[in-house]
Amino acid sequence: MSELEVVTYTPSADELAWTFGGVKPVRSVRPGAVLEVWTEDCYAGKVKGPGDLVSEVCEFPFLNPQTGPFHVEGAHPGDTLAVHFVSIRPSRDYASSTTVPLFGALTSTHSTATLQPPLPERVWMYDVDRRAGTVAFTPGSGDPVVLPMDPMHGTVGVAPAAFEVRSAIVPDAHGGNLDSPEMRTGVTAYFGVNVEGALLSLGDGHCRQGEGEACGTAVEAAMDTVLAVDLVPGTATPWPRIESDEYLMTLGSAKPLEDAYRVAHVDLVDWVAELCGMDRLDAYQLVSQTAESPMAQVCNPNFTVVAKIAKRYLPGSPTAYGGAHGRLTEVAAGYRRERL
Amino acid sequence: MSELEVVTYTPSADELAWTFGGVKPVRSVRPGAVLEVWTEDCYAGKVKGPGDLVSEVCEFPFLNPQTGPFHVEGAHPGDTLAVHFVSIRPSRDYASSTTVPLFGALTSTHSTATLQPPLPERVWMYDVDRRAGTVAFTPGSGDPVVLPMDPMHGTVGVAPAAFEVRSAIVPDAHGGNLDSPEMRTGVTAYFGVNVEGALLSLGDGHCRQGEGEACGTAVEAAMDTVLAVDLVPGTATPWPRIESDEYLMTLGSAKPLEDAYRVAHVDLVDWVAELCGMDRLDAYQLVSQTAESPMAQVCNPNFTVVAKIAKRYLPGSPTAYGGAHGRLTEVAAGYRRERL
Amino acid sequence: MSELEVVTYTPSADELAWTFGGVKPVRSVRPGAVLEVWTEDCYAGKVKGPGDLVSEVCEFPFLNPQTGPFHVEGAHPGDTLAVHFVSIRPSRDYASSTTVPLFGALTSTHSTATLQPPLPERVWMYDVDRRAGTVAFTPGSGDPVVLPMDPMHGTVGVAPAAFEVRSAIVPDAHGGNLDSPEMRTGVTAYFGVNVEGALLSLGDGHCRQGEGEACGTAVEAAMDTVLAVDLVPGTATPWPRIESDEYLMTLGSAKPLEDAYRVAHVDLVDWVAELCGMDRLDAYQLVSQTAESPMAQVCNPNFTVVAKIAKRYLPGSPTAYGGAHGRLTEVAAGYRRERL
Amino acid sequence: MSELEVVTYTPSADELAWTFGGVKPVRSVRPGAVLEVWTEDCYAGKVKGPGDLVSEVCEFPFLNPQTGPFHVEGAHPGDTLAVHFVSIRPSRDYASSTTVPLFGALTSTHSTATLQPPLPERVWMYDVDRRAGTVAFTPGSGDPVVLPMDPMHGTVGVAPAAFEVRSAIVPDAHGGNLDSPEMRTGVTAYFGVNVEGALLSLGDGHCRQGEGEACGTAVEAAMDTVLAVDLVPGTATPWPRIESDEYLMTLGSAKPLEDAYRVAHVDLVDWVAELCGMDRLDAYQLVSQTAESPMAQVCNPNFTVVAKIAKRYLPGSPTAYGGAHGRLTEVAAGYRRERL
Repeated sequence: MSELEVVTYTPSADELAWTFGGVKPVRSVRPGAVLEVWTEDCYAGKVKGPGDLVSEVCEFPFLNPQTGPFHVEGAHPGDTLAVHFVSIRPSRDYASSTTVPLFGALTSTHSTATLQPPLPERVWMYDVDRRAGTVAFTPGSGDPVVLPMDPMHGTVGVAPAAFEVRSAIVPDAHGGNLDSPEMRTGVTAYFGVNVEGALLSLGDGHCRQGEGEACGTAVEAAMDTVLAVDLVPGTATPWPRIESDEYLMTLGSAKPLEDAYRVAHVDLVDWVAELCGMDRLDAYQLVSQTAESPMAQVCNPNFTVVAKIAKRYLPGSPTAYGGAHGRLTEVAAGYRRERL
Repeated sequence: MSELEVVTYTPSADELAWTFGGVKPVRSVRPGAVLEVWTEDCYAGKVKGPGDLVSEVCEFPFLNPQTGPFHVEGAHPGDTLAVHFVSIRPSRDYASSTTVPLFGALTSTHSTATLQPPLPERVWMYDVDRRAGTVAFTPGSGDPVVLPMDPMHGTVGVAPAAFEVRSAIVPDAHGGNLDSPEMRTGVTAYFGVNVEGALLSLGDGHCRQGEGEACGTAVEAAMDTVLAVDLVPGTATPWPRIESDEYLMTLGSAKPLEDAYRVAHVDLVDWVAELCGMDRLDAYQLVSQTAESPMAQVCNPNFTVVAKIAKRYLPGSPTAYGGAHGRLTEVAAGYRRERL
Repeated sequence: MSELEVVTYTPSADELAWTFGGVKPVRSVRPGAVLEVWTEDCYAGKVKGPGDLVSEVCEFPFLNPQTGPFHVEGAHPGDTLAVHFVSIRPSRDYASSTTVPLFGALTSTHSTATLQPPLPERVWMYDVDRRAGTVAFTPGSGDPVVLPMDPMHGTVGVAPAAFEVRSAIVPDAHGGNLDSPEMRTGVTAYFGVNVEGALLSLGDGHCRQGEGEACGTAVEAAMDTVLAVDLVPGTATPWPRIESDEYLMTLGSAKPLEDAYRVAHVDLVDWVAELCGMDRLDAYQLVSQTAESPMAQVCNPNFTVVAKIAKRYLPGSPTAYGGAHGRLTEVAAGYRRERL
Repeated sequence: MSELEVVTYTPSADELAWTFGGVKPVRSVRPGAVLEVWTEDCYAGKVKGPGDLVSEVCEFPFLNPQTGPFHVEGAHPGDTLAVHFVSIRPSRDYASSTTVPLFGALTSTHSTATLQPPLPERVWMYDVDRRAGTVAFTPGSGDPVVLPMDPMHGTVGVAPAAFEVRSAIVPDAHGGNLDSPEMRTGVTAYFGVNVEGALLSLGDGHCRQGEGEACGTAVEAAMDTVLAVDLVPGTATPWPRIESDEYLMTLGSAKPLEDAYRVAHVDLVDWVAELCGMDRLDAYQLVSQTAESPMAQVCNPNFTVVAKIAKRYLPGSPTAYGGAHGRLTEVAAGYRRERL
């Protein structure tokens, strides 16, 4: 794979983006290229110790900094951008998680507004052991809690449609702050292209995250991440999708949470119907008996639900997006052989 | 009132704006000025007869065109912009209302996604009788239905915070597509300023609208509208508010609908507590026994609820925003004497 | 009206009912009869002073005691029960309102569960001036707040369908804890009959209530109430409805709040279509431009929204339920001439 | 285990129950007993072939028949009932799934009411191969789809609190129609006791079910099921919980879906805090980074979300409910040795 195009990019502090859309591209890349990037953590690197309360060290709206956007050559509205995660590795030996006033799933918020005082602010610092593949925090009483790493990106997406510019806190049809643990190494994410060049950005790395991201933050870390990018011309994608070796997944973002569920599962039914040549009601039946339906997050301005179906249940073993996931998996393997 | 500054502006077709934020100002106005503007209808003028189905004559996202934005001199983030509606008059002798596929309160939508076919498309043309102050449509069977006019603007607001640009279909903390029948002649609307110059826009005139805007559209019309604009420096406003001679109102926009209710009523409790010098629980009690809580709309990407309290129930007869509503009401009276 | 049947009933403490359904009738009444009843307040009379916190003086589930149920002779499943409020008068010279832990619209609750402590408990005692028609409470600081009375019943309904028994805290298709200010003197409420005899109960009198009942309670009072009851055989009613001299109203109870809105407005569209002989889309259009859509309450296990249409907008001046409202209004007038 | 008490019970058609609560017990059992029962399918056995549309062969409310209730000796309000699933086996060689008008997650419903016609009715018959452990249906076009069995009970629970009687279609704090695939062989479910004797019922067997139960029904089957029952006196359980060898789980049922998520996750945080002796915020942090949060169902009158935490993440390896799951697992093993 000597012809592999590799683009390496580490943003300076003033190159970080705070939105999807509305930002000029930092680099232009060709379909098939591999991107080696660094992403800052969701706190813009400001939470470094247990005394660093978000309300004191961070300044709204300078949260969830994005690396990018990358202009993908030849990407036009109506195409699909395929983004394969080759590797995601924490770039520091610490990570952190916090409560944030009026943010999180088990607290009142700016939109689920109540007259109660907010939950107290707290910072949990994590030791990151990259060799052991673990992270650990110490509760107020008792021994450290050691958890396996499962690195992922909370945010990845493209510029929105309809001339909109959305905060990097927001997930929607363009991707953005989806906060799904499924966005891990080895998967291919698909995004519908809304503007020329697609304008891919990513950030908000998590060493690991529970489904739902209950407290509003995961084990937040800066990341060294490698992506492989491809284009599926002439194929539209209504909502973000993910393909792994075992699963097809769709991600719906909306409120209330049942609307996020509905969006994801209608898209999965339609995808299955199209791939398998089934009528829509038969696909509804198949999805009804086989779907896995985990939360992504229940804390952002839109909530995100994942609908998953195991490929082994799909009659005829169909191939999605012309085999993009397989091709990008091979690109990733070639990159690993050459570079890692 | 010989010193009255009057700015007159009629946008050409290519000057219409499709977003709040992200657009350069078309004019700069001083606080205290009166604005005479024309606004196109929500269909960009494309629905002219019963055969003009939205899905055929309109092109997404070119809906809800806005007149503006207007740069208000001296408006800084943290200030409040006061916008008084001096008059709102239909500029054509027809108006229209339609169903729109996957849009409306009593149909499945893009976010309340179902596997059913959408409701059928239909166009209702209205005769506008400006002398009689009525609008009339004819059902498929039976006599015309004649309804009194009560003109209002569905959209009015400023540029959003956090570098965002929002479609003119969306209501949020910046205002936008609030679609409240309360936004009528004689009221003063208050918006928190997020960017230099505030960037006020408006559009989406309605000859009348039911609360909730169930079918997704009102009696939609181009409007000749007169506004008086003022600034309340150093006073922030978290969510849009309206003051009439009789009422204070707050407008919350969110999903699910109970969150829109919560946002509006927490803001009303806080406003009453501040104006009346009550503690927050006493204000909660007063609002609980006196609020009127009508829907604005249940069809846009966020839903909007109005919380109203009659001024006569407020102990001490407090004055909001330093008397801006009273001053602007006088400006309006002066304008009417001079110009109408 | 010498033939007027008047049934007088004051429950003893152990005759109070805590559910709709599952309770034996206390009296049998004929259609056309007038009922003079007394209802206890929602606190079962236990809140008598500012120190009577609900969590200390009340015992769950002994809240919202109901007077009844009344067996209506000849009422069968599929019929409609019409209940006209002849008069609603506070029976004591005090009333009260409170916060209740984890109950109310602007607090986290048992179902909108958060990790925050609940809002503090507080009791507001009201003086009831029946001559002046006012109620008054005194905030922690400042003068008393005097508000006009507008008495209503928070709960009224029949036994549920499907063998269910529901707590008197719950509103649903059978009525129950609807908590709508529209349930006032002079209106006729309609309920679909689910079991033999309908089993009508009522309680939870309010001297007045804001729309939404934000803090979870209104100005709660024991009431002397007079009802006139009638039957509309062979006509089913899917959700509670109210008719006043000016309006037709439907009440939807569900969660999230937009579902309560949808239920009420679909029922109003269907009712208008049937009464006016319109097709359903024309009725949708008429409702969209004329509905008033206030909250009833946003604090109970289901939320309740009211959809109202002014009768003057209905082409052909149709009569609902065979003129039951008119007939019962005459019964009420006759009763007043004879008895009051 | 010669002292094992085994109670065998097969209901006749007129012994089936349609509610939780409001029904007299069919048998009394002692804690520690094993129950061998048969449960009818959710259609009351009426769907036997592809022409058996639910709207034609079933009669509302005679759906989701329950076997029981069983009076558990010594169970008092404030105790917890532990129910261990020893085995769940389809009792017929067929199963079925259907759409039901205005029921399901991807359709408008009685509460998410719209003006559209309902989705079409369809029946899918499944062949049940108990030896192979598979079920299979044939789509309108193409080959049969063969899926592995994973039998479970959609409904299991006790009589509700507050004198309520709930339809077997409804899930809530008493259990009922939870429709979670986690309710499978080998787990122990915990329910708070609300009335003397607890009054345990179960039914609605599923050969398998996707998370969310999108179309409203699973692969529905009559079941031969074996349970082991135990009592944890003096320990209350606020919402249904499940323990498996690997996981602790909580089940929240509410609307909107985020409230079901909140209920389940607040209960999990509290359970973890209590078991591990952590403060509530530390438990919030641990749950935030480790929870798995699948849907149970998004189609019933309340929606149900599961919150799961792997036991291996709990510091100190605590034991829940005094080891009830371990003891019942041994009872199950003893029963299997003796009887199977």
